[in-house]
Amino acid sequence: MSANNKILLAHGGGGRLTDELIRNVILSTLGNYSLNKLTDSAEIKIGQTNICFTTDSFVVKPLFFNGGDIGKLAVCGTINDLAVSGSKPLVLSLSLILEEGLEIEVLRKVLHSAARAVKEENIEIVCGDTKVVEAGSADKLFINTSGIGLKLLKADIGFERITAGDKIIVSGTIGDHGMTIMSHREGMKFESEMKSDCGSVAQICGKVIEALGDDIKFMRDPTRGGLAATLNEIVNQIELGIEIQESQIPVNPTVRAAADMLGFDILEIANEGKVVIVVSQQKAQKCLEICRSCENGKDAAIIGEVSKSGEPLVELETKIKGRRIVQMPYGRELPRIC
Amino acid sequence: MSANNKILLAHGGGGRLTDELIRNVILSTLGNYSLNKLTDSAEIKIGQTNICFTTDSFVVKPLFFNGGDIGKLAVCGTINDLAVSGSKPLVLSLSLILEEGLEIEVLRKVLHSAARAVKEENIEIVCGDTKVVEAGSADKLFINTSGIGLKLLKADIGFERITAGDKIIVSGTIGDHGMTIMSHREGMKFESEMKSDCGSVAQICGKVIEALGDDIKFMRDPTRGGLAATLNEIVNQIELGIEIQESQIPVNPTVRAAADMLGFDILEIANEGKVVIVVSQQKAQKCLEICRSCENGKDAAIIGEVSKSGEPLVELETKIKGRRIVQMPYGRELPRIC
Repeated sequence: MSANNKILLAHGGGGRLTDELIRNVILSTLGNYSLNKLTDSAEIKIGQTNICFTTDSFVVKPLFFNGGDIGKLAVCGTINDLAVSGSKPLVLSLSLILEEGLEIEVLRKVLHSAARAVKEENIEIVCGDTKVVEAGSADKLFINTSGIGLKLLKADIGFERITAGDKIIVSGTIGDHGMTIMSHREGMKFESEMKSDCGSVAQICGKVIEALGDDIKFMRDPTRGGLAATLNEIVNQIELGIEIQESQIPVNPTVRAAADMLGFDILEIANEGKVVIVVSQQKAQKCLEICRSCENGKDAAIIGEVSKSGEPLVELETKIKGRRIVQMPYGRELPRIC
Repeated sequence: MSANNKILLAHGGGGRLTDELIRNVILSTLGNYSLNKLTDSAEIKIGQTNICFTTDSFVVKPLFFNGGDIGKLAVCGTINDLAVSGSKPLVLSLSLILEEGLEIEVLRKVLHSAARAVKEENIEIVCGDTKVVEAGSADKLFINTSGIGLKLLKADIGFERITAGDKIIVSGTIGDHGMTIMSHREGMKFESEMKSDCGSVAQICGKVIEALGDDIKFMRDPTRGGLAATLNEIVNQIELGIEIQESQIPVNPTVRAAADMLGFDILEIANEGKVVIVVSQQKAQKCLEICRSCENGKDAAIIGEVSKSGEPLVELETKIKGRRIVQMPYGRELPRIC
């Protein structure tokens, strides 16, 4: 816990401090079998059917950015949590916290964007809530979306299914969302050349499960904390290492330049329309082909594999064949990225 | 819509302006069959089972008050939305927006309270999320809870089932929550004599449905906007009037005194542990007895009935046999009451 016993921005960064807060404060009070698993959604049996249930609050700043806005982000973020859990998104809730003085036109624009995103996914927002707080007690507009998905019969996903030799696939270029937001905040010139990947990965997730069933061992969308956080979350649970090759990781050159210039590790930068898939060695190539056949998966790549032995660490082979440990980010780097 | 096209505090008050915002901005963009019904939760068919799904964000100020805190409120508020929809609460999500600088001990206290509330109801929080915003971008701590309930087989609840002659029951004294919060804010002396009714109505709702089935026509928890808003929401949907007797409405004398002193209409004050039940004339007495047999229903009363004819208005017969129209509150009275 932080020295001064106060909430720091880093507690929300999706890295080590977020993890500490969740374990030491949240799970120690609210913890139970389902919550303790720290999966992207909870699985619940309703009659003979399994559903997935998830929630996410969105506080992204700015509200509008190249490639999306808080409305699209809130819808796609929750869709993605359902999709990577091996479920077909069914319905969402949408709850607003509005700051007094917010332009109603801004709200309307955000809701239109949310409406477009649910329509594209062929699902519906079925319930909602609206609260207003005094000027200065919130920053314009926060959104919570919760969602329910129908577990796909062929899906058998979980940390415990990951074994040595499984391949790691990422569905496209990394860092686009985080660097678009950061460049916008920093007022960088090449902001307009970058675009958030804010979008749904439900098509990719649904297709690979449908085609490959239980050869798909695990999926997660690498949001806050980026690829580094997601891979570290995996190794912490499976007690095996992961090795990845820097040369295989797809990165948009402008995004890489922006990250270098601002001093960020691209592996730690948030994505909002990507999925990391752990797939059996035998079906890795097929999985890659399916990803690439999807509209937002054309840059998918196999970036590494689960080690056959060794410590539960993420190791990166650099382009010049050096090796470094990829640590769980601390979390301070990117407040309010989603 | 407001003249200046900005969000006002009254847009969150649960009255006329909230209603306008929901209809003109939210339903006009996101609306669909389920959302347009404006019920406390959405009903969804999962296989052969019907579930209810609901969401609520909580921004109450202060975080702690006599009778509860934001943690208990967030859990009970969503439980109540599920219960009044005729479902048995099953699981909740809990999503936090934290302000940088918040004492972690405050968070821990709130979560302990939430944990106690879910334990009392014998349900679980199965998924969650945590975001942190900069100091000054939120007010300490906001909570969203969403929830899933199993629709009770005997429940057949809806505005369309209400008919002339049905009786209106309220499960206990009104105004306790709102006046406790307002007195706290105003620093009134008798604050300590009042206590929020913050609590679950699931036991009452479950028992009356179990015993009376489809004689229970409709239920709603009269939160923001109080009894006045709930009864107006009903008459707006059924196109019949409602008549209530002031002399029959249970009110704690201290709460009434506080409301009088601060210039509030007690009918417009928020409740957080009460339910309004519309029940068939034949089973009204039985329903009342069941309410009174429950721990938090001992002050339940039949306060009026659905008119046999007339305009869709709520009419109050005063104690001195005068009559007045109870209007939908405008909404400005009580910001951040829940």
